[in-house]
Amino acid sequence: MGKSPLMKQLSTIKTAQRALSTLSSDEKNAMLHTLADALTQHAKRIYAANKQDLLLAAEKKLAPPLRKRLVFDQVKLADSCKGIRDVAALKDPIGMVRERRLLDEDLLLERINVPIGVIGMIFESRPDALIQILALCLKSGNAIVLKGGSEALHTNRELVAVIREALSGYQVGSSWIVHLENREDVREILKLDTIIDLLIPRGSNEFVRYIMDNTKIPVLGHADGLCALYVDQESNLEMAVTITVDAKCQYPAVCNAVETLLVHSAVASQFLPRLKTAFEPWSVIIHGDKRVAELIDCIEAVEDDWNTEYLDFEMAIKIVDSLDEAIEHIADHGSGHTDGIITSNASTGRKFLREVDSADVFWNCSTRFADGFRYGLGAEVGISTQKIHARGPVGLEGLVTSKWLLAGKGQIVAPYAEGKQFKHLDVSLHGKSLWGEESHGT
Amino acid sequence: MGKSPLMKQLSTIKTAQRALSTLSSDEKNAMLHTLADALTQHAKRIYAANKQDLLLAAEKKLAPPLRKRLVFDQVKLADSCKGIRDVAALKDPIGMVRERRLLDEDLLLERINVPIGVIGMIFESRPDALIQILALCLKSGNAIVLKGGSEALHTNRELVAVIREALSGYQVGSSWIVHLENREDVREILKLDTIIDLLIPRGSNEFVRYIMDNTKIPVLGHADGLCALYVDQESNLEMAVTITVDAKCQYPAVCNAVETLLVHSAVASQFLPRLKTAFEPWSVIIHGDKRVAELIDCIEAVEDDWNTEYLDFEMAIKIVDSLDEAIEHIADHGSGHTDGIITSNASTGRKFLREVDSADVFWNCSTRFADGFRYGLGAEVGISTQKIHARGPVGLEGLVTSKWLLAGKGQIVAPYAEGKQFKHLDVSLHGKSLWGEESHGT
Repeated sequence: MGKSPLMKQLSTIKTAQRALSTLSSDEKNAMLHTLADALTQHAKRIYAANKQDLLLAAEKKLAPPLRKRLVFDQVKLADSCKGIRDVAALKDPIGMVRERRLLDEDLLLERINVPIGVIGMIFESRPDALIQILALCLKSGNAIVLKGGSEALHTNRELVAVIREALSGYQVGSSWIVHLENREDVREILKLDTIIDLLIPRGSNEFVRYIMDNTKIPVLGHADGLCALYVDQESNLEMAVTITVDAKCQYPAVCNAVETLLVHSAVASQFLPRLKTAFEPWSVIIHGDKRVAELIDCIEAVEDDWNTEYLDFEMAIKIVDSLDEAIEHIADHGSGHTDGIITSNASTGRKFLREVDSADVFWNCSTRFADGFRYGLGAEVGISTQKIHARGPVGLEGLVTSKWLLAGKGQIVAPYAEGKQFKHLDVSLHGKSLWGEESHGT
Repeated sequence: MGKSPLMKQLSTIKTAQRALSTLSSDEKNAMLHTLADALTQHAKRIYAANKQDLLLAAEKKLAPPLRKRLVFDQVKLADSCKGIRDVAALKDPIGMVRERRLLDEDLLLERINVPIGVIGMIFESRPDALIQILALCLKSGNAIVLKGGSEALHTNRELVAVIREALSGYQVGSSWIVHLENREDVREILKLDTIIDLLIPRGSNEFVRYIMDNTKIPVLGHADGLCALYVDQESNLEMAVTITVDAKCQYPAVCNAVETLLVHSAVASQFLPRLKTAFEPWSVIIHGDKRVAELIDCIEAVEDDWNTEYLDFEMAIKIVDSLDEAIEHIADHGSGHTDGIITSNASTGRKFLREVDSADVFWNCSTRFADGFRYGLGAEVGISTQKIHARGPVGLEGLVTSKWLLAGKGQIVAPYAEGKQFKHLDVSLHGKSLWGEESHGT
């Protein structure tokens, strides 16, 4: 049986990844700066390719937001190159010693950070996403399988060509990058659970949901961002209005914008008319439950509204009679992304922080802060609503796993099985790691 | 549409888990000691139930090893109760602050350890596994769905009854424990990816493989333990013989026993006859490649032997001509569990530690050390050969995820979107966490 063209392309990626994983931090950072230089130097080639994609997009009458995301111009290039140099400046996560324990005399255990292996990146539109994730993979020693949308094919192809040329001067080369161009490749990628260790999809909710539902490979990301805000009976209502307006209107098309507002019945009659007035400049459409409808002009909410991510100037509002009811509503309808409370009662705030089981749980601030850059992670690999591996905004550590190293002088298990005791002595994380590089400590 | 009986049983488990997650460390530890006391007090009930299972097993002529694992006697009870008290003595992983950063004045970010949620435990035979995982879940604030093998039904049922009675004196009760008894429940459990956050299977390789292949829920564990040992050209051959014998013969039925031996051609003629002699007391069956067969008496290896986990006094031996060939063989045939090298050359050892991509990579010691208790983890949830979430022997941290808490005084994103800078000031991990309990630090 012959191998598929895809399998042929992927046959050497594990070997290439092994070579990549052994590079020093200095080598990887030098490569990153070379990439940024090359992209700047060959900017015209990339712009020309991008122009082709934009013309085709216009011919095909693609939706304007999609076409906007497709643009790769001087601003995008400058941002991308700054992004690459920022990644070079980050601390190398690989080789960091997480644990170090002397199990017994001359028997040293270390748990050390290593790359995950092969990352699969499937993305729609934005060609700058390719550059960002490729830089993060290089820094973390991971090979990458890239599949962009057909609408960005010429731009992506040219970006990869420039990157390959730039890396040809390095011994490790660019065989750790596989760029796929065929639509059918997506379905094949989803089956490659023996080759790809982690999938990162970037695109619409439906796109991410499709990926998650059709693969056994772990997926880093989120499909839904159904965020709720709860205005408690003891709260500064002016603050509550300001935060609600920011969380809904500052940028409604993103995953950390608020979609559902829960208001305690004791303050609803004071709060809702003020909010309604504050919403006027954006003409926010409100879907309210019966009690809300008695207080302000709104569309009557149906059951589906509690599960709807509007991603627009539109919001569902419900009146609740207790903190517990609010927590229960979030547990039943939320997507585990970001949920917040406005309260001036500390024990109410703490209970909310503790009991709401979401990646990000906020108190007296806007849900819009849920973001890797705002969190100071240095780089954002994605925002995960899963509980396994990484949760919430994920930085470089999302591309890292660990392995255990044990070095002895001939020790065997037999005497310990017969009663010999281990020492289990935790020792300093500083100093050289067992594999010989200087440890980064923690 | 009516709910299935299973869904009815599970309808309240998330609420019960939320209550469990808010208990203090002292409360959880008190419950653990109560459990150990109750099991000791009601030992006779449990032994009687176990006797029923053993009689049925004898009638059904179950295989002797299975029957042995089914036994729950005074020794197993004493071990289990000691295990529970050991878990009580462990540091509480929940509420520990992993990161703490002042994003800006009065805007504090914390990343805090929280329970994963609902753990599904599917296990064969050993009733003591039920007690162990239940204690670990209680300590880490996770609800648990238990499904044991039908051969241990009476014992498991009695254990759960004793545990429920013991917990009835506590407000949180035992509704965070769901015990399933029907064979069909297994198939249903595998579909519950909206309820169960993590599955832990315990049983034969085939059993674990079946679970992994038939669910979208993340699985903590390993199906295969195809461990290799490489004897380098520069190695202490006496040490190499001793370690190989320990790794193969000390307990061959376990996942960290060695199955494949790779020997450098430069030392094969010296090493292999000595190993053959050392293997004699156990009559180890050797499957050797052509060059091995020229040096010692053996069965000629076929391709399948390099992929076989014998779990018995049986081993595949291959002669290689370089370290790289050994690393390549492990990459192609290993299961990513535990692989070791015997070498007195430090740079060879380091290269092996770095380039072999397995959960545990060992140098001059037996593969049999790969074990949570030997590693000093205090408790072992399982050994994972996956790269996501947890890798290698996994302690309590395998039952833990994190969430991000952010507390402010009314901050909104708008000014930052317009250029206001964040401070991003990492602050001490000590002191009270945002949700009010004393922080454990790291």
